[in-house]
Amino acid sequence: MRYLLILIAFGFTLNGTAQQKDLTLEEAVLSYSKGLTPENLKGIKWFDDSNKYLERINDYYTINFAEVASKPGRLSLIEFHQAYPELEKTPNVVSINSKELVFKNENQYEHFDYINKKAVSTTPFNSNAKNLDYNTTNKTLAYTIKNNLYIAKPLISGKEHEGQTMQVTSSDDPNVISGQAIHRYEFGIVKGTFWSPKGNYLAFYQKDEIDVSNYPLVDVTTYPASLNNIKYPMAGQKSEQAKIGVYNLKMHQVVYLEIDTKDEHYLTNLSWSPDEKLVFVAEVNRAQNHMTYNSYDAETGKKVNTLFEEKNDRWVEPEYDAVFLPNSNTEFLWMSERDGFMNLYHYNTSGKLIKQLTKFKFVVNSILGFDKAGGNVFVSARGKDARNSHVFKVSLKNGKKTNITPESGVHHAQLSATGDYLIDNYSSLTIPRKIDMVITKTGKSRNLFTAENPLKEYNLGTTEMVTLKAKDKADLYGRLIKPNDFDVNKKYPVLIYMYGGTHAQLVTNRWLGGASLWMHWLATQKDYIVFTLDNRGSENRGFEFESVVHRTLGDHAMEDQLQGAEYLKGLPYVDANRIAIKGWSYGGFMVSSLMMRHPDVFTVGAAGGPVTDWKYYEVMYGERYMDTPQENPEGYENARVGKYVEGLKGKLLIIHGSVDPTVVPQHSMTLLKEAVEKEVQIDFFTYPMHPHNVGGKDRVHLMTKMLDYIVEYNQ
Amino acid sequence: MRYLLILIAFGFTLNGTAQQKDLTLEEAVLSYSKGLTPENLKGIKWFDDSNKYLERINDYYTINFAEVASKPGRLSLIEFHQAYPELEKTPNVVSINSKELVFKNENQYEHFDYINKKAVSTTPFNSNAKNLDYNTTNKTLAYTIKNNLYIAKPLISGKEHEGQTMQVTSSDDPNVISGQAIHRYEFGIVKGTFWSPKGNYLAFYQKDEIDVSNYPLVDVTTYPASLNNIKYPMAGQKSEQAKIGVYNLKMHQVVYLEIDTKDEHYLTNLSWSPDEKLVFVAEVNRAQNHMTYNSYDAETGKKVNTLFEEKNDRWVEPEYDAVFLPNSNTEFLWMSERDGFMNLYHYNTSGKLIKQLTKFKFVVNSILGFDKAGGNVFVSARGKDARNSHVFKVSLKNGKKTNITPESGVHHAQLSATGDYLIDNYSSLTIPRKIDMVITKTGKSRNLFTAENPLKEYNLGTTEMVTLKAKDKADLYGRLIKPNDFDVNKKYPVLIYMYGGTHAQLVTNRWLGGASLWMHWLATQKDYIVFTLDNRGSENRGFEFESVVHRTLGDHAMEDQLQGAEYLKGLPYVDANRIAIKGWSYGGFMVSSLMMRHPDVFTVGAAGGPVTDWKYYEVMYGERYMDTPQENPEGYENARVGKYVEGLKGKLLIIHGSVDPTVVPQHSMTLLKEAVEKEVQIDFFTYPMHPHNVGGKDRVHLMTKMLDYIVEYNQ
Repeated sequence: MRYLLILIAFGFTLNGTAQQKDLTLEEAVLSYSKGLTPENLKGIKWFDDSNKYLERINDYYTINFAEVASKPGRLSLIEFHQAYPELEKTPNVVSINSKELVFKNENQYEHFDYINKKAVSTTPFNSNAKNLDYNTTNKTLAYTIKNNLYIAKPLISGKEHEGQTMQVTSSDDPNVISGQAIHRYEFGIVKGTFWSPKGNYLAFYQKDEIDVSNYPLVDVTTYPASLNNIKYPMAGQKSEQAKIGVYNLKMHQVVYLEIDTKDEHYLTNLSWSPDEKLVFVAEVNRAQNHMTYNSYDAETGKKVNTLFEEKNDRWVEPEYDAVFLPNSNTEFLWMSERDGFMNLYHYNTSGKLIKQLTKFKFVVNSILGFDKAGGNVFVSARGKDARNSHVFKVSLKNGKKTNITPESGVHHAQLSATGDYLIDNYSSLTIPRKIDMVITKTGKSRNLFTAENPLKEYNLGTTEMVTLKAKDKADLYGRLIKPNDFDVNKKYPVLIYMYGGTHAQLVTNRWLGGASLWMHWLATQKDYIVFTLDNRGSENRGFEFESVVHRTLGDHAMEDQLQGAEYLKGLPYVDANRIAIKGWSYGGFMVSSLMMRHPDVFTVGAAGGPVTDWKYYEVMYGERYMDTPQENPEGYENARVGKYVEGLKGKLLIIHGSVDPTVVPQHSMTLLKEAVEKEVQIDFFTYPMHPHNVGGKDRVHLMTKMLDYIVEYNQ
Repeated sequence: MRYLLILIAFGFTLNGTAQQKDLTLEEAVLSYSKGLTPENLKGIKWFDDSNKYLERINDYYTINFAEVASKPGRLSLIEFHQAYPELEKTPNVVSINSKELVFKNENQYEHFDYINKKAVSTTPFNSNAKNLDYNTTNKTLAYTIKNNLYIAKPLISGKEHEGQTMQVTSSDDPNVISGQAIHRYEFGIVKGTFWSPKGNYLAFYQKDEIDVSNYPLVDVTTYPASLNNIKYPMAGQKSEQAKIGVYNLKMHQVVYLEIDTKDEHYLTNLSWSPDEKLVFVAEVNRAQNHMTYNSYDAETGKKVNTLFEEKNDRWVEPEYDAVFLPNSNTEFLWMSERDGFMNLYHYNTSGKLIKQLTKFKFVVNSILGFDKAGGNVFVSARGKDARNSHVFKVSLKNGKKTNITPESGVHHAQLSATGDYLIDNYSSLTIPRKIDMVITKTGKSRNLFTAENPLKEYNLGTTEMVTLKAKDKADLYGRLIKPNDFDVNKKYPVLIYMYGGTHAQLVTNRWLGGASLWMHWLATQKDYIVFTLDNRGSENRGFEFESVVHRTLGDHAMEDQLQGAEYLKGLPYVDANRIAIKGWSYGGFMVSSLMMRHPDVFTVGAAGGPVTDWKYYEVMYGERYMDTPQENPEGYENARVGKYVEGLKGKLLIIHGSVDPTVVPQHSMTLLKEAVEKEVQIDFFTYPMHPHNVGGKDRVHLMTKMLDYIVEYNQ
């Protein structure tokens, strides 16, 4: 206990008076569809060219001015009908400017002159198209059908058109996939197509998975069951080879950037120079400890230069594209963790570091944009308390920062095209949701919307935020939920819900403190204390806090979770012999490891989709943290759950989706096999045909199973 | 209760006095390796040409005379060493006659002149060979490597040999399999090669599975997991096409019998005429209601004649080859259920029924042989009480029968080559094991061996045999095991262990009444009453008792098991609210069905490897009982477990081997899927890499899981 410092940040009852309703678990799990999440303004969308914005009210839109609260415009199905008589309801708007709006109408994108009620253009596409990437500038649509990439061109009334579609790639090889996200969505990659700023080029990812192993999943809905192979590169095994192609829409030809990826290195954070001449790629070696930021000529594919490099003994993980300064083809901001926190660096395309713009001791999460006149960049960043998220205005000249969303909480903001206004959508432990219009120049704001507490008629637990100290003195943020009729003289059982992996933060200063409603169900209906702690390795705390886990996944996370358990045991109202744990994915790894490696601390565990052996997890994520099994055999063996199976004393329920393509079922199956061989009883359930998460209505079944199990055995 | 007649056959305590030891579950499950099964004489083998027999005593054999109790001969490693100096232990004898013995020595069969201590011949074979079928007459060995069939010829010292192996088939098609059992081991088929009586021909099965679907099983022991497709013909889908080839060893050529199996009919009970001229095949249509018994010319493959046909509205199921009378090429005995019980019919090869030899109202299980002099055939048959099995001598002239093993019990007998003697190995509820030498002519016997009760130091339950009445008045045999310290004034929980399917009989008059030792563990260690009832559909009771289940699998079985439950509830010492059920395979089908369809009767169920939907079960077994899903959609739907899943009130544990090739995992997976969709909680466990049964040491884990579950929830 000597390293443990307890800070009760604030404790309060969300609902002060006795309430009528008890939550059901179904309401808690399906809270959104049950209307138990805070209301929101819908369809909020800034105009592309002014300080006006759309808001959707049921089946129509209002057109609003940032400056004033009046609502002069209204856009409903009626306005569309002159140009689109077949439309049956007001469509979802993709974008809008002063002259026209863009919407998707079944298998076409429409440009609608809403002033004159005229269709401007239509870009139709194949009904099998996926990965749609629409470019409003030149009205072209990139999309994929199976493994190949296509572009649809617009039909413009009164104009000749060159043909409706262009086939960018035409590979018959099922291993070669173009126009889709690569590297399993790591490195911030979420898509495979990248329009050049003016729409004259389309850059795209291509991957060749010929050397990647198949993982066999079984579809039990066919008669008989059938095979569904997926490509799955396991740590230490052969991986995919990536390419970047650039399609020239005028010349109708593809040039591939001259990059050799036989070494299976990663092509990340593809972006364009504003003049469309250069393509930038952050290239990361397979070992993920060396990034080279390169530019390539979009016309020839030849390398132009290496702008700079980043190295780190643990890892480098670029996740954010370069963002060019307004009206510059040569200067951009780059986000890097190289000084220990994600900060902004001002570079030019020659690779010269003009300056480190920010030296925050907290994490920047994204660049929202600029105010052209004022010379400021707006960033979303954590601020002093990493459980919050604010918008900071940062002077491009001197890096001076101003928090323009000062209210404590988690702020999500949309900057207007001009940079003059911010629509700031935020919540905190005590605020269900507020939406303010912020004048970026002055920081003054007016409230657009304040949500009521959707749970005000329900019995909820009380939430306390606590701060513990890790052994290395790092602050660890925790959240404690107590029963509504908490009695300090009683002894309560505890459930610790945990994740523990990187790129996740469970304890935040958002509505309910980031808690799920089922935690309040458990607290109020089953008289539980529900605790969560973000251990080292979790996100938004800087590189050291996260990367200390390198090559030893699980060890620091467990150490911190055990600190959490120690803290709980020290509370006079906690029954120290009834501490249960629950988690999914990395959290399943944590729960199964803790149950076996610290069997005297925890009574019962429920572990879903657990990683049980990192060698069965994917190359991109796994090797970043663990290196390869060949390079780090002790680390892999030390983290292997089955190694400890004979240590299990309590009850452990393992759950796995039968077609989990992320943490493949082999993880649970090999653990069960080892448990059987070593004569250890574990419980197991599988959700047939569910992937890595059990979603939809079936999630109620899942939560019932896990929580029933915990309540039954945490005795 | 009005149809229920209770007959307590006999109840007694196996161990009269208080005993020292409690069984552990591990001892109970691994009873054989723990030395808790009755001792046996080992290596008992009659000479091929006389009334002598071998018996193995540790590492040597004795050669014994049936007539007298003296043991004049001894055969140990020493006797072998002159001819086989490399041998390291006394080998297992395959067969023996007055001159030589045959044994298998690693990858060769050896003929050993044990009188003169000389090797006579060696037949070597490939180390990858499987499905070995050795013909001692001409010292040739049939075997398979992968999908093809081979014959190894002997190396005879001093003689030229024609080459070591002959390749009988040479197909590259992985769907075409020769020399292995076909039709998934139904119709009594256990192998795919059939030597002609003098060894000049080898008949063999071939199947073409090109149209049979693959079922994907997943091997999780590889890195990454890998696919193991098996061919699995599901009811109503395309099946295999069978052929019979005849290889002429002199001509080195194969002739295929001229049978067209495009209609996927079954080729069963292949046998030879003693003169090697004819091959007999019981051909059964795919609908399994019409059998045609045909003979074919072994030289030309042409059909010679149809001897007779059998039809039945329910099914016909030939399972026994023709057995020719001694010294006859034309007269044989045929076993058929056509009069309602398996009886013997005397035919000639023209198809003339000479006479129905037996008209037993009980079931004959096999023909053991003849006494050439006396004109008798010996059969293994049930006798009046189908829980027994006896050997009857039946006069070939008039069908007169004599029970030559009259002691009540289950007798397994080996007839000497002459038919003069029988080695009779038997047990009963009260007799662990006795082995008698019976003179077949007189029926007189002397005891060779009497096993001690291997459990005499253990606390066991007491066993009572009961007889209930089915609604159609059929006798139903049950077995009740009570705790050793049974107190009639207490209320005991019950476990009913059931199977319920065809071709099985759980309640017999063998040692422990057919019970497994884990039942006694449960009775004595957990204070349970353990009950088992053979319902209608089970074996050894005649055709009507078995075939009443046609097209409605489960219905009669459940009706009878509910009678059993009613009986138990009527017992004053049974806690009617604590009746658990447990079963595997068909028994898993029964348990899961009963838990859902009769939720008020049973508290908890444990169902292993359950059939949950007969359309996912194999063509051969499934269509015999259910017809096809197309022909009997109501029957299939009525028997589908998932249909009733919302009826479940108690606790149900489903268990499945992850690579079960018999009842494929799709059965459990689709049931779980439906349970999840219908918001019903079921428990599940899978044994990774275990097939249809969980064997070996892991069986202790399985039984622990199932019985712990039952004891925990049967409250």
